[in-house]
Amino acid sequence: MNAPTLDFWFDFGSNYSYLSAMRIEQAAAAHGVALRWQPFLLGPVFRALGWETSPFVLQKEKGDYVWKDMVRQCRKYGLPWQRPGNFPRAAVLPLRIALAGAGQPWIGEFCRRTMRLNFAEDRDIDAPETMAALLADMGLPAHRVIDEALSDANKLRLRRQTETAMEKGIFGAPTFFVGDEMFWGNDRLDDALAFARAQAGA
Amino acid sequence: MNAPTLDFWFDFGSNYSYLSAMRIEQAAAAHGVALRWQPFLLGPVFRALGWETSPFVLQKEKGDYVWKDMVRQCRKYGLPWQRPGNFPRAAVLPLRIALAGAGQPWIGEFCRRTMRLNFAEDRDIDAPETMAALLADMGLPAHRVIDEALSDANKLRLRRQTETAMEKGIFGAPTFFVGDEMFWGNDRLDDALAFARAQAGA
Repeated sequence: MNAPTLDFWFDFGSNYSYLSAMRIEQAAAAHGVALRWQPFLLGPVFRALGWETSPFVLQKEKGDYVWKDMVRQCRKYGLPWQRPGNFPRAAVLPLRIALAGAGQPWIGEFCRRTMRLNFAEDRDIDAPETMAALLADMGLPAHRVIDEALSDANKLRLRRQTETAMEKGIFGAPTFFVGDEMFWGNDRLDDALAFARAQAGA
Repeated sequence: MNAPTLDFWFDFGSNYSYLSAMRIEQAAAAHGVALRWQPFLLGPVFRALGWETSPFVLQKEKGDYVWKDMVRQCRKYGLPWQRPGNFPRAAVLPLRIALAGAGQPWIGEFCRRTMRLNFAEDRDIDAPETMAALLADMGLPAHRVIDEALSDANKLRLRRQTETAMEKGIFGAPTFFVGDEMFWGNDRLDDALAFARAQAGA
């Protein structure tokens, strides 16, 4: 029998995607569920819904709450936290790298390191020098990886990936899919994994 | 030492409040936390935020998702579920009754029965005859309870309660408070209870 698969749709600028990205690889493995990293651009999805930026910026009350919630959630998950000075932070380059490398063995570590830079160190993750240093630190051929990420074919792939997100009904991040079954938000990751495991056993 | 207290802000028209209302009394008791039922009108809060109705109606993508999520959540919590034919359903009368009766021993049972009528039986909970039958079925003096709920003083109290909700930064329901610490959504009920218990032990 094939292992059940969980698709993890995320953007590096999304704070609730941070909570999921840091634990999803381990959690999926513990459930015997295969994981597919599905980076996409959340900005165009928000704009298609009529929002010029994150609802956490547009809705002051919800935004004020979210930053308190993040402090508590990070404490709960044992994660470092520093509110980004720039939110939502642009992450086109790391998303292009993640899409190009989605099937590589280093994808999980790359995503966790990038998330940590944004949400624990308040660093500009969209800067080429930041990404080059991160990749080099992981022992990867930074310039080759970045060149591939910046190829026309990969740029087009990220646009198509974002269109696919909209076609699937995604309106926020993180979003998880098990087949056609959609789960929205870090608070549903455990439900999604349980669903994936149950499907496989059916 | 006083028992820690959890304030539960809810509207009978709110589907995620349903998930909390059905389990909160038992969960609070299990944690040794005192519970205060805080009914309020969610509609004026949404309008003050610039939304003419529920975001689940205004945002089609999110709304489509929410009804799938509710099916799964109700299965998880072992609750009956029928999508209301009218959403968000007006609940001014039951909210007035709940506010007038918030300190009564029957408040929990009243709220659960009202929620069940809305979200499991698709009944018009704002109709006086529905409320009269429900109260009588609970062995309460239905007409006296309803008369008190409809008094000018109690009507004014519900308006003030709703203003208080806005002043506290509430932007949705359910919302929980432990002192000034706010927790939004049924997904945070367990965190709020754990926080309340930790505060008491501190």
